[in-house]
Amino acid sequence: LLETIVLDFDSVLAAAQRISPHVFRTPVLKREIADGGTLFLKAENLQTTGSFKVRGAFNRMLQFPAGARGVVAHSSGNHARAVAHAGRVLGIPATIVVPSTIPAAKRDPVVRDGARVVTVGPDSEERKERAMEIAAREGLSLVAPYDDLEVMAGQGTMVVELIEDAGALDRLYGPVSGGGLIAGCATAFKALGGGEVVGVEPESADDTRQSLAAGKRVAIPPPKTIADGLCVRMPGERTWPIVQALVSRVETVTDEEIKDAMAFALHDLKIVLEPSGAAALACALREGKGRCGVILSGGNVESTLLAEVARRPR
Amino acid sequence: LLETIVLDFDSVLAAAQRISPHVFRTPVLKREIADGGTLFLKAENLQTTGSFKVRGAFNRMLQFPAGARGVVAHSSGNHARAVAHAGRVLGIPATIVVPSTIPAAKRDPVVRDGARVVTVGPDSEERKERAMEIAAREGLSLVAPYDDLEVMAGQGTMVVELIEDAGALDRLYGPVSGGGLIAGCATAFKALGGGEVVGVEPESADDTRQSLAAGKRVAIPPPKTIADGLCVRMPGERTWPIVQALVSRVETVTDEEIKDAMAFALHDLKIVLEPSGAAALACALREGKGRCGVILSGGNVESTLLAEVARRPR
Repeated sequence: LLETIVLDFDSVLAAAQRISPHVFRTPVLKREIADGGTLFLKAENLQTTGSFKVRGAFNRMLQFPAGARGVVAHSSGNHARAVAHAGRVLGIPATIVVPSTIPAAKRDPVVRDGARVVTVGPDSEERKERAMEIAAREGLSLVAPYDDLEVMAGQGTMVVELIEDAGALDRLYGPVSGGGLIAGCATAFKALGGGEVVGVEPESADDTRQSLAAGKRVAIPPPKTIADGLCVRMPGERTWPIVQALVSRVETVTDEEIKDAMAFALHDLKIVLEPSGAAALACALREGKGRCGVILSGGNVESTLLAEVARRPR
Repeated sequence: LLETIVLDFDSVLAAAQRISPHVFRTPVLKREIADGGTLFLKAENLQTTGSFKVRGAFNRMLQFPAGARGVVAHSSGNHARAVAHAGRVLGIPATIVVPSTIPAAKRDPVVRDGARVVTVGPDSEERKERAMEIAAREGLSLVAPYDDLEVMAGQGTMVVELIEDAGALDRLYGPVSGGGLIAGCATAFKALGGGEVVGVEPESADDTRQSLAAGKRVAIPPPKTIADGLCVRMPGERTWPIVQALVSRVETVTDEEIKDAMAFALHDLKIVLEPSGAAALACALREGKGRCGVILSGGNVESTLLAEVARRPR
């Protein structure tokens, strides 16, 4: 018996309703680029906690039964911050399993939100195992970073807002890591009559590009890129069929292109993007034609890298 | 016969209608600060051309008769950029008189918009005289940077949007230079039932603070501050009576406080502010209590200063 995993657009609309008291309706910035392209940039770096991750976290955590004993999450940074924040807001104790390489800018707010922090190696698979272990031992509910339909539905809400503000779009550029953002966003984009969905990965973190080429989930070696939020080694189990069905193609960008896009964001858009948050923009600046939606997914960046990018010749 | 200068709120509402196709509805960011204060931050750094100045420029230039021979403006930077932009959009040739000290980040876009640029010393009075000379000789219309009721009305539109988004506010913090922004904003704020209006000036550019204390317009020596947009030496002739009537008090901030506020904007708000755009925030962070509106007026900053602020210890 083959289970087909589908994310229903109704789940995205229900999520939008559910999370609206807790998330910020981020602005859509508009920029004309060369060759007649127009970019409609969904600035999720301005979202509460500095990234889109609160959308999925709230949508999941608002559906736990009252009196739940607490939640546990594993994350390279932004999901950690989102779950810790939602935990504080909703009064749910949160335990977060983070990599040893987590930047201070992403760790400190988790601690300030009162979450318990557990540190486990740099590898995302190890973190996942430890989180599941803790969940089982302590009776906590896991808030998956991407491989969960309600988390995906939450992330998809940003595209509902994007199209409300921008109108019809020919194309959507979004970053791909585990696939939760792009699965949720693609579901909403297609349901609302949008055209092509372009996933964007760092060159060395192209597991989804390779998986689409192979027609099945492919694992890659630990990626090396400044985009620390896009370093998973394999598409999610539940995100994968949705990605395979709805993502038209995956393009890769170099760290240099990401830094250029971060500099463009600082000097032209007047906003701060983290490397992962600039990946889709980097691709859209390179090839954007027609009316393009672009997801700027987050802005939690270390000050040394930010200063380097600010000084970058343009 | 004493002429009383009043800016009517109806002019602000008419301006809002008139300029709406040409300006971006900037977001209002919300932050809780110590002592129970809540800041509602109007992010005009995300405005078209990187500052609020397009509001006044469009409101003035949309009222010139068709077939006008062109416009001339004098400006320390952001007004220049706004008039050049509006000129290109509306098909009106623009001449801009700029100081020799204008940062490249503010000069380059003026040139790209096809405006003629005339450079005159660092002093704002010299620039004003030259602009009036050119206007008279060439039959051009002057677009005053602040001392014009329609320019003030345009700037006031940002407060209409701010209160629509934030609800009732106890207090408004706005930067004060020639007084166009604060006069327009105070007019709208008072008409909409807002409380106290706090003007903010750099320590060495406190001409309006001194003028309020003296009960008449006072001229000061050329100011020395990183807030290059707030360096006029005397309140405007037409802005002054409005400022005197509606501004409750003027507070000053140091360059160090301005840099701290710029760093807060980068790391916490994820936005880029220029020094002048961070002055009101600096004051609000120091004293903000209750529900405070804060005008973040612009984001056009040189990359070296931006990099310095990004690295600043917090």
